[in-house]
Amino acid sequence: MNTMEKIFRLSDNALGMQASEIRELMKLSSKPGIIAFGGGSPDGLRFPFAEVAEIEKEWNDAKKRAAFQYGATNGYPPLLDHLKKRMISNGIDMNDQSIITTTGAQQGIYLMAKAMINPGDTIIVESPTFIGALASFKSLRAVFEWAPLEPDGISIDATKAILQRLKKEGRLPKFIYTIPNFQNPSGITMSQLKRKTLLDLAIEYGVPILEDDPYGELYFEGTATDYKPIKSLPGANNFVVYLNTFSKILSPGMRLGWTTGPSTLIGQLEIAKQSIDACTSSFTQVIASDYLEKGYVNGYVDKMREVYRSKCAMMMLSLEKFMPKGVSWSKPTGGFFVWLTLPTGVSSRALFNAALSRNVAFVTGTPFTEEGKGDGYARLAFSNCSLEDIEKGVKLLSEALKEVAA
Amino acid sequence: MNTMEKIFRLSDNALGMQASEIRELMKLSSKPGIIAFGGGSPDGLRFPFAEVAEIEKEWNDAKKRAAFQYGATNGYPPLLDHLKKRMISNGIDMNDQSIITTTGAQQGIYLMAKAMINPGDTIIVESPTFIGALASFKSLRAVFEWAPLEPDGISIDATKAILQRLKKEGRLPKFIYTIPNFQNPSGITMSQLKRKTLLDLAIEYGVPILEDDPYGELYFEGTATDYKPIKSLPGANNFVVYLNTFSKILSPGMRLGWTTGPSTLIGQLEIAKQSIDACTSSFTQVIASDYLEKGYVNGYVDKMREVYRSKCAMMMLSLEKFMPKGVSWSKPTGGFFVWLTLPTGVSSRALFNAALSRNVAFVTGTPFTEEGKGDGYARLAFSNCSLEDIEKGVKLLSEALKEVAA
Repeated sequence: MNTMEKIFRLSDNALGMQASEIRELMKLSSKPGIIAFGGGSPDGLRFPFAEVAEIEKEWNDAKKRAAFQYGATNGYPPLLDHLKKRMISNGIDMNDQSIITTTGAQQGIYLMAKAMINPGDTIIVESPTFIGALASFKSLRAVFEWAPLEPDGISIDATKAILQRLKKEGRLPKFIYTIPNFQNPSGITMSQLKRKTLLDLAIEYGVPILEDDPYGELYFEGTATDYKPIKSLPGANNFVVYLNTFSKILSPGMRLGWTTGPSTLIGQLEIAKQSIDACTSSFTQVIASDYLEKGYVNGYVDKMREVYRSKCAMMMLSLEKFMPKGVSWSKPTGGFFVWLTLPTGVSSRALFNAALSRNVAFVTGTPFTEEGKGDGYARLAFSNCSLEDIEKGVKLLSEALKEVAA
Repeated sequence: MNTMEKIFRLSDNALGMQASEIRELMKLSSKPGIIAFGGGSPDGLRFPFAEVAEIEKEWNDAKKRAAFQYGATNGYPPLLDHLKKRMISNGIDMNDQSIITTTGAQQGIYLMAKAMINPGDTIIVESPTFIGALASFKSLRAVFEWAPLEPDGISIDATKAILQRLKKEGRLPKFIYTIPNFQNPSGITMSQLKRKTLLDLAIEYGVPILEDDPYGELYFEGTATDYKPIKSLPGANNFVVYLNTFSKILSPGMRLGWTTGPSTLIGQLEIAKQSIDACTSSFTQVIASDYLEKGYVNGYVDKMREVYRSKCAMMMLSLEKFMPKGVSWSKPTGGFFVWLTLPTGVSSRALFNAALSRNVAFVTGTPFTEEGKGDGYARLAFSNCSLEDIEKGVKLLSEALKEVAA
């Protein structure tokens, strides 16, 4: 124990959260000129810059004052109104439900974790799943039960088996965490049938679902009906907490998300938020409220569906063109990500080094899965690369793969 | 247990954080037309609106993209550079020290709590102290040792006695939380002599200090030397973590603070923050960085010192003019708050009701102190009231007080 550790005696929670390999890899990936399949960032050249400038230019004194001042912990009332309408138009029954705005959807995840997790509590997660959610849950010392993903979403059989076993052991999970649309990292979408079945299971066992839907509007095949949230199904009202964000439909730099769920629960999240950051940025909430009110969101989402459609198409074409035999990948119909299954025996960690030396970055499969299961996989994000870079990057990655496999 | 509680089984941390009386009082206080001595908000009519508009108008493409995109968890690099210079010019030795930007200084408090507190751990706090800090610590089930405030700051004798006792019991506190300048809620400033003595105690016992300094620049008597942070004293480097915020020198609606401390500890806060909200708003960080770079901060702080000086002077005059005998109050030399000691037997809760019926709000003393100690006190914030309202509000409050005392 060095001096610092004697003076700053860390909590058990913090001691369980030492710097992870993934963070080191991400730092390596941020060198200039790199083709970045790594981070899950939106297209950085196409944010609605002009719309936001227009919005702020039109602020009257009252809006300016609201934007610069502290706000209520649950959110800026006009924004809450717009979000409520949006939830209703998305098929969600807002009876006895409330909304709280959050500092990114990441905070919505953390608030749920803080409100519900005791050390040792179990959470059912998809395998693979979002690193940020795992970090939130781990930071409160949850343990995981992993339900494998299938091409049409979470394995219902596995989920049911887990629930049966945990019920028998008297330790039902606190909730089931799922990303039904264009899942991070797999790009997989849960079928509407499975959504219904998963909800039935949740109701049967009395275990809520935490539904994370950051990419749901960014479909580029099918229609909105194919991607309707679990939260919109009959009977979901008391069992599903729904997370969403402005990160993909406006800007992640605004750090603005929202959580919808039973009012009594949202009240608990509000109390937790009070102690964490008091309120979400009024400044970015007033921007987002006007962005919804003026309908700018629709034009932007329409445009970005086309942008991500082309990028994904280029990714698919390039993978088909360059990847050696033994590699397979998911076929996303929206979102940012493709999940690569590497040939048997090829380590994504070894591939990472070979790719990095060719100036291509991605995220290895390991941090998304249970220990020892992810090294044969890789997540590629096409969202923030040019079409040229996608083609070039996949070509370089395939060369790295051949080198590693040799 | 109702249905919701069966489905959403709350954590022990959450169960300990049921809605507090203070939150209900604050809601009652937000009715229109009220004279609001309650919230600790900056002057809402005088934010640097024009400067921020000017900053955004001048953003080039690179800055726009940085503002709209995800950023590093520890902060926007140009802002971190400006803050480092600011810390150094404030006398702080930045050797082996790092800075992390936070979603308000409230998040800095929470990150420290999350990194260091196990359930049952002790924190030494001033009596009275900031409600938001108590909420953060309580939300992780800390217990408190209360060191009374004296007119020149925290009682050194009491702090020493607490440290001796806890050391003997083998349960040294995780840290000492203090607000040395224009303390919230008392308005009291710790003398430079006491800062030195407190630091010596911290070093002697190996217990760090969490120094919260949101108001430090807003002095209206004396000079910066009188308010130099504990963090700037010789030997403080490894023992003091320093919190500050843009809430009082730019805008609380931006939700932007920063924490400075030993690099290894700040690395732990960064890991904690990753799981809570991933990163602080890039949008507001780019604004704040330019705000420091262009030097707008100096003009604004100079102006606001004068504004708050007049408001505090009007508060002092009005208290002298209207308050009945048996009432006393602190004499702040900066910041936002005056702490009222009510005549023996007068309850601040009863006064609250009588004042509210006259359209005046304040915060009762109870939430700032150990249980059963605060009801004889009241916090008045003069920061966001007009001079007219301060005079009128104090007059009405004195009438309410006479009614309650009768």
